[in-house]
Amino acid sequence: MNNSVIRFILLYVVGFMGIFLMLPIFVALIYHESVWVDYAVVAVPCLILGIINSRIKPKEVSFYLKEGFFCTGASWVILSVIGAIPLWLTNEIPHFVDAVFETVSGFTTTGASILDNVEALSHASLFWRSFTHLVGGMGVLVFLLTIIPLAGGEGSQFNLMKAESPGPSVGKLVPKLKNTAQMLYFIYLGLCALEIILLLIAGMTPFEAINTGIATAGTGGFGIYSSSIGGFNVACQWIVAIFMFVFGVNFNFYYYVLFHHARDAFRMEEVRMYALLTAISIFIITLNTLSCSAGLFDALTKAAFQVTSIQSSTGFSTTDFDMWPQTSRCVLVLLMFIGACAGSTGGGIKVSRFVLMGKAVHKELISYIHPRSIRKTLMDGKPVTHDTVRSNNVFFGTFMLVFFVSVFVLSFENIDFSTVFTSVIACLSNIGPGLSLVGPTRNFAFYTDLSKIILILDMLAGRLELFPILMLFHPTIWQDLFTKRKVKELKHAGKILNDDFK
Amino acid sequence: MNNSVIRFILLYVVGFMGIFLMLPIFVALIYHESVWVDYAVVAVPCLILGIINSRIKPKEVSFYLKEGFFCTGASWVILSVIGAIPLWLTNEIPHFVDAVFETVSGFTTTGASILDNVEALSHASLFWRSFTHLVGGMGVLVFLLTIIPLAGGEGSQFNLMKAESPGPSVGKLVPKLKNTAQMLYFIYLGLCALEIILLLIAGMTPFEAINTGIATAGTGGFGIYSSSIGGFNVACQWIVAIFMFVFGVNFNFYYYVLFHHARDAFRMEEVRMYALLTAISIFIITLNTLSCSAGLFDALTKAAFQVTSIQSSTGFSTTDFDMWPQTSRCVLVLLMFIGACAGSTGGGIKVSRFVLMGKAVHKELISYIHPRSIRKTLMDGKPVTHDTVRSNNVFFGTFMLVFFVSVFVLSFENIDFSTVFTSVIACLSNIGPGLSLVGPTRNFAFYTDLSKIILILDMLAGRLELFPILMLFHPTIWQDLFTKRKVKELKHAGKILNDDFK
Repeated sequence: MNNSVIRFILLYVVGFMGIFLMLPIFVALIYHESVWVDYAVVAVPCLILGIINSRIKPKEVSFYLKEGFFCTGASWVILSVIGAIPLWLTNEIPHFVDAVFETVSGFTTTGASILDNVEALSHASLFWRSFTHLVGGMGVLVFLLTIIPLAGGEGSQFNLMKAESPGPSVGKLVPKLKNTAQMLYFIYLGLCALEIILLLIAGMTPFEAINTGIATAGTGGFGIYSSSIGGFNVACQWIVAIFMFVFGVNFNFYYYVLFHHARDAFRMEEVRMYALLTAISIFIITLNTLSCSAGLFDALTKAAFQVTSIQSSTGFSTTDFDMWPQTSRCVLVLLMFIGACAGSTGGGIKVSRFVLMGKAVHKELISYIHPRSIRKTLMDGKPVTHDTVRSNNVFFGTFMLVFFVSVFVLSFENIDFSTVFTSVIACLSNIGPGLSLVGPTRNFAFYTDLSKIILILDMLAGRLELFPILMLFHPTIWQDLFTKRKVKELKHAGKILNDDFK
Repeated sequence: MNNSVIRFILLYVVGFMGIFLMLPIFVALIYHESVWVDYAVVAVPCLILGIINSRIKPKEVSFYLKEGFFCTGASWVILSVIGAIPLWLTNEIPHFVDAVFETVSGFTTTGASILDNVEALSHASLFWRSFTHLVGGMGVLVFLLTIIPLAGGEGSQFNLMKAESPGPSVGKLVPKLKNTAQMLYFIYLGLCALEIILLLIAGMTPFEAINTGIATAGTGGFGIYSSSIGGFNVACQWIVAIFMFVFGVNFNFYYYVLFHHARDAFRMEEVRMYALLTAISIFIITLNTLSCSAGLFDALTKAAFQVTSIQSSTGFSTTDFDMWPQTSRCVLVLLMFIGACAGSTGGGIKVSRFVLMGKAVHKELISYIHPRSIRKTLMDGKPVTHDTVRSNNVFFGTFMLVFFVSVFVLSFENIDFSTVFTSVIACLSNIGPGLSLVGPTRNFAFYTDLSKIILILDMLAGRLELFPILMLFHPTIWQDLFTKRKVKELKHAGKILNDDFK
């Protein structure tokens, strides 16, 4: 392992946490809240560490996929622990595991909470919770790529981006990775700003609009009221619903639309399937909940909001969907597994993985019918490599294994099956609320620490597409970390990496 | 498609149904029941068709995998429909879809019932229900292989056996496939006879012992009393529990033990993992149910019975495990997914598939850590082909897709999530009872016909490892069926097949 570059990147992340933590301090000062001290106590050491780090450049800048994955996994763990300290110091979340749960839930854009009464929090902490969604949504290391000369050449950068981007494959939109990352952030923040403006026009206060906007952008789901979005007017609800859908779309779609490839955009199989699934689900739930709503429009509003919220893995709610008829609840649980598009800020297994798996199953079937036929799997009209198909298949299996192991550990809680089952999928797919005891009007506070830690790992594993987190449990990684490699060898590796990438 | 051989095999199966149906007639005559007429009405035409068929030999005897799969899928559908007719004619199951559900449940060794009151059935029908388990357990076409000169060479026979044998890969134990099939049936019926004798000694009546024995052998689970096995003494319960475990073990294990490869037997990773999972589950459930049992031995007896019953996919019960604490219920649901060993009579995804998936996940993880390393996946010390690993991965995905689609259709029933979820897994894994409304003291009668048909397809898909049933829905198969191929072309295919196989 290239320890010096790992040290450099991890401490860079710590430095940025210092900068990020200035924002809640700023909010606290606006609202004359005393909690700014608690945030400052954490921010200042982070900033100092970051500044010192930026002076000590790594000896060798290139690194392999394993360093990329390790950095990503470790960064998110560090991020979450540091982010939890102020919430714990302010005594707003007195139990430290709870504070970590809440922060992980924020950064991973899950939105699952352990808080009974959100309104009791200070403005600074409310903002901090929402802001973690914005940071986590597009990825922290992708963010680093946009602004710092992270070095190591395209190959190394690609290894970082690959580990953090949601979905089966990472494409470069423009020739340079750095520019791709900038482009994604431009679209991300642009859409977020647009939503905030529309919410302001629709009647939210600036604080409400900003918090809701950034929590939607990251498909997070932390609300600033216990009623989530239920207390806002219908116009606000529709704006949020539409933007939840929008942030669940593969960002390549927007890139294509913005830069004159509109035909390519609408040919994307994943986006079409995503839109189709949303439409079908809204249709079914509207009909199913008609009898318990105030008319067709009310049913449609609630159905559209909840479907986009769950499928994009945001997790906002305008109604207690745990009280809905069973058909609607089942549809929502299925959507929890499917999730949003790859390359969006949303979670879940991802629509493209299901599309690809559907194609793999079909190919398998054809292979029994015509054993000697050789067919290429196509996606958006282009052939998919064997490696991508294999990875995709293994991902499904891994997801199931992680899911089953988590359900097994949580089953020791002696709570009902629906709660355990939906708690795990709500965390693993980064949704937020589940059903029964973790329904939209409840929270995760009742779990024991062991279960909370499992759910924390599920949230991280879900956000980082399983492997960067699983890797942290593999002994080889830790052995490698304490074995020094010669700089010369690393330089050679860097050359290979960049050659591979060209 | 080689239509003449398909016709030949399917009508051969029909002929055998005629012979099988003589048994309940025989039982009815012993107990002086009038229902023998209803069984005879179906048996006689089947026999006549079978006899005529055996005179008209197929033009060409070899066939491809697709013919093997098609024959298997179609045989099981035909078998189930014919088997349902007598139950419907006797008016014991007045609704035809219900009768088909019950028969499919029997042949697929599921054991899910739509009957409220099992005791109301005639002895003939009770026996017929249990007997379908025996027929379905080891496979109908494998049975044909043992006795008739099915022809087409080893390659063709292999294609039949592959479609019907549970598990990721079929091995030949002895050089000739026919002898392998005979060997498996010898072990199967031998163990079954042993169990019946032990049950007689433990105090069951002959009718009880035979029914329970054959239902255990096929890991079916139809009981002849509403209380399932709960009404028998503890000795009987332990005998059944042990034999449920025994029939969930890969039959290769017994072959190795019997024919001096005992070391190979105990080296089988799948069997070791199966035993380990059983032991751990019994341990957890015993502790968990201790407070609601009459002492440690009672808890252990019930836990051992229920764990072996669910994991082997039998589905007998001695207690209403739906009333157990949540931890125990969760463990049982997880066992429903895992199921028994490949090459046993049990269902589920199979232990070996999970073992192989675990290895695939580990390999994927290693590939991120050391991208240039090339490792072979080993199973029982032997390398596993890429194709087996790929098939295994696709199987998991297919299982999930079938599972989700079924849950989606059943969700229109407007019943609770646990019921829908466990109904589907109980049918797809050929278990029998689930939780809540389909718990061990309840039944599947309340479902609408559409849901019953979905569950019927799930049972068939689960028993035949998905693809032979999915194939029946593929248009290509039906196009091929109505396109005649030249005999010469088929002969050539037969040669290739046998060459491939050598």
